[in-house]
Amino acid sequence: MADVITSEYRLATETGLKSFVQTVLEKAGVTAEDAGIVAEVLVAADLRGVESHGVARLESYYVSRLRNGQMVPKPDVQTVRETATSLLVDAGNGLGHPTAKRTMERLLDKAGQSGAAFGAVRSSNHFGIAGYYAMLALDHDMIGIASTNSTRFGAPTFGRDILLGTNPLAFAIPAQNEPAFVLDFATTTVPKGKLEVYARKEKQLNPGWAIDANGHETLDPQVALHGALLPLGGFGVDNGGHKGYGLGLLVDILCGVLSGGAFGDELPLPTDGPLPGKISHFFAAFKIDGFRDPAAFKRDMDVELRAFKDSAKAPGQERIYVAGEIEYEKTLYNREHGVPVHVKVWNGLEKLAGELGVPFDFEQR
Amino acid sequence: MADVITSEYRLATETGLKSFVQTVLEKAGVTAEDAGIVAEVLVAADLRGVESHGVARLESYYVSRLRNGQMVPKPDVQTVRETATSLLVDAGNGLGHPTAKRTMERLLDKAGQSGAAFGAVRSSNHFGIAGYYAMLALDHDMIGIASTNSTRFGAPTFGRDILLGTNPLAFAIPAQNEPAFVLDFATTTVPKGKLEVYARKEKQLNPGWAIDANGHETLDPQVALHGALLPLGGFGVDNGGHKGYGLGLLVDILCGVLSGGAFGDELPLPTDGPLPGKISHFFAAFKIDGFRDPAAFKRDMDVELRAFKDSAKAPGQERIYVAGEIEYEKTLYNREHGVPVHVKVWNGLEKLAGELGVPFDFEQR
Repeated sequence: MADVITSEYRLATETGLKSFVQTVLEKAGVTAEDAGIVAEVLVAADLRGVESHGVARLESYYVSRLRNGQMVPKPDVQTVRETATSLLVDAGNGLGHPTAKRTMERLLDKAGQSGAAFGAVRSSNHFGIAGYYAMLALDHDMIGIASTNSTRFGAPTFGRDILLGTNPLAFAIPAQNEPAFVLDFATTTVPKGKLEVYARKEKQLNPGWAIDANGHETLDPQVALHGALLPLGGFGVDNGGHKGYGLGLLVDILCGVLSGGAFGDELPLPTDGPLPGKISHFFAAFKIDGFRDPAAFKRDMDVELRAFKDSAKAPGQERIYVAGEIEYEKTLYNREHGVPVHVKVWNGLEKLAGELGVPFDFEQR
Repeated sequence: MADVITSEYRLATETGLKSFVQTVLEKAGVTAEDAGIVAEVLVAADLRGVESHGVARLESYYVSRLRNGQMVPKPDVQTVRETATSLLVDAGNGLGHPTAKRTMERLLDKAGQSGAAFGAVRSSNHFGIAGYYAMLALDHDMIGIASTNSTRFGAPTFGRDILLGTNPLAFAIPAQNEPAFVLDFATTTVPKGKLEVYARKEKQLNPGWAIDANGHETLDPQVALHGALLPLGGFGVDNGGHKGYGLGLLVDILCGVLSGGAFGDELPLPTDGPLPGKISHFFAAFKIDGFRDPAAFKRDMDVELRAFKDSAKAPGQERIYVAGEIEYEKTLYNREHGVPVHVKVWNGLEKLAGELGVPFDFEQR
């Protein structure tokens, strides 16, 4: 865990950083309650070590788009359709996080009554880490599912047009003494940010990551940045690229088509700049006690997770992880030691604080 | 499509082949109704071109296990727990297909009333293709999900113990004029049968498919057959192997742990021979009209699927497929021309017919 705490990082207090994010968003016209939810979700990402989805995006993804009118600070959020087991919400082109969290909470209420509920949000924007919303189910002895479509970076198997986002899928399942199983993954092999990191370091890509603009696989990060990401499983079908492509398209259907939102080639390309309100989300929750006593289930979850963690390691490996475990341990560590924020991000936040006249005082001392 | 119809294959009539499978299973003590369901599911696999899950397994997976007492021909199937939105069934160590199909049908009834339903089956056996059960949702304007755990062949990321089955996940979503979206995939990169084919042909494996018994990646199929399959995404984490591992474990949790059935290292290894009643299944269904008018949804599904199919092809590629399309076209073709059955399988069925005194007369003429 300690590897992230280098001189490239400075440490923030969790409450101070959340408070800062909230204040900044309030300055941009967002209500205190909505701003608090965004702060909670962004800092949760940084605590979990998912820097790419944390406060690093505060200015570029959220504040700038609120200030230049591309996103609505106080959106008119509407329930479009509702049954005892389903919910469709229009986010009114507001921040994704508040409507996503409230929709998942309403689904948990519904599932608490009915046993199961599915929901979607349309006309939304980037909502942070999908896992946050799936994990809301954990305290209710439910299994949670969350997903979102996204700006397009990826190509389908046998194709070269950019049609698919990184379209993450997240599942959260509680255990007893073990950390919960939290699987939260992009359906492309790697995120676009990885190509940018490799370009900066002038490192070759792995096979299976990206194609050039003509649809040939490429190991050159500069070329790949003008091409497209490959789906999980890589190029062609030999290593299962069609499976990752299928999962990416599944996410776009469950989010975009099912919600009546934007989908397929209506979603923004990176070159489009932000297209307001084009993003959709999908959620589900169901009660474990529809199947078994939740306490017995969670005891068995411990047995299941331990069977994997205690199994024989491959040469050179010290641990076998289960999904969500690394992020859980990072959260514990970062809560104790401070939330690591990359100095470039830190400096950006300081600049933003100056522009908005917001106090900048969340350093862990 | 025509590539499968070579001299290595003989052609059966669909009705004749189904009738043969049903008669064979009845001879093994299975009721006519159950035998008819198994015949339907197995021949559906052959029609879809999924030979590995079709009549090729009739003797080895089903009839032999019924005849030697490892599986129960007329099982005592019990509803263990039931709510308006959930269902847990114990298959009584019978054939997987009949209880799986009836459970999914009961979930479709529940979802028809409640909007959404989740279910699981425990104490079951191999149920054929997962996609068959997910597709039962299609005619109800619902989205269907089906999954099963399975005999273990695969290792977790950073591990070398064999802990994971090929654990398939299937999703079926209706469209209007386009074939339905049917994603049905193993969460390992390749099935074990692929290693066997490569061993026979003395061909090198791809990187990302398998490890040896010590946990090193191997390209030697003979060595791999004594090792383990890798999860979708391959060896280690660089190409997303942890994602495929997470999906495989997710399936084992949803099937084995949620049902109170066998899970983790309780599942059979190939070297164990069949362990009766250790397999569990998971299903879900929900109504599209909880979100949108189903007709409008299906029109948009056509737009979505066409956006992918009509997009620019990579060099050397003539078509971009969406999930389930190849299998749909094979079904149409095979319904017209006859169901292709490999001569080795054909001869095995003829031998079985002789042993059981069952007429062998389903050749397409």
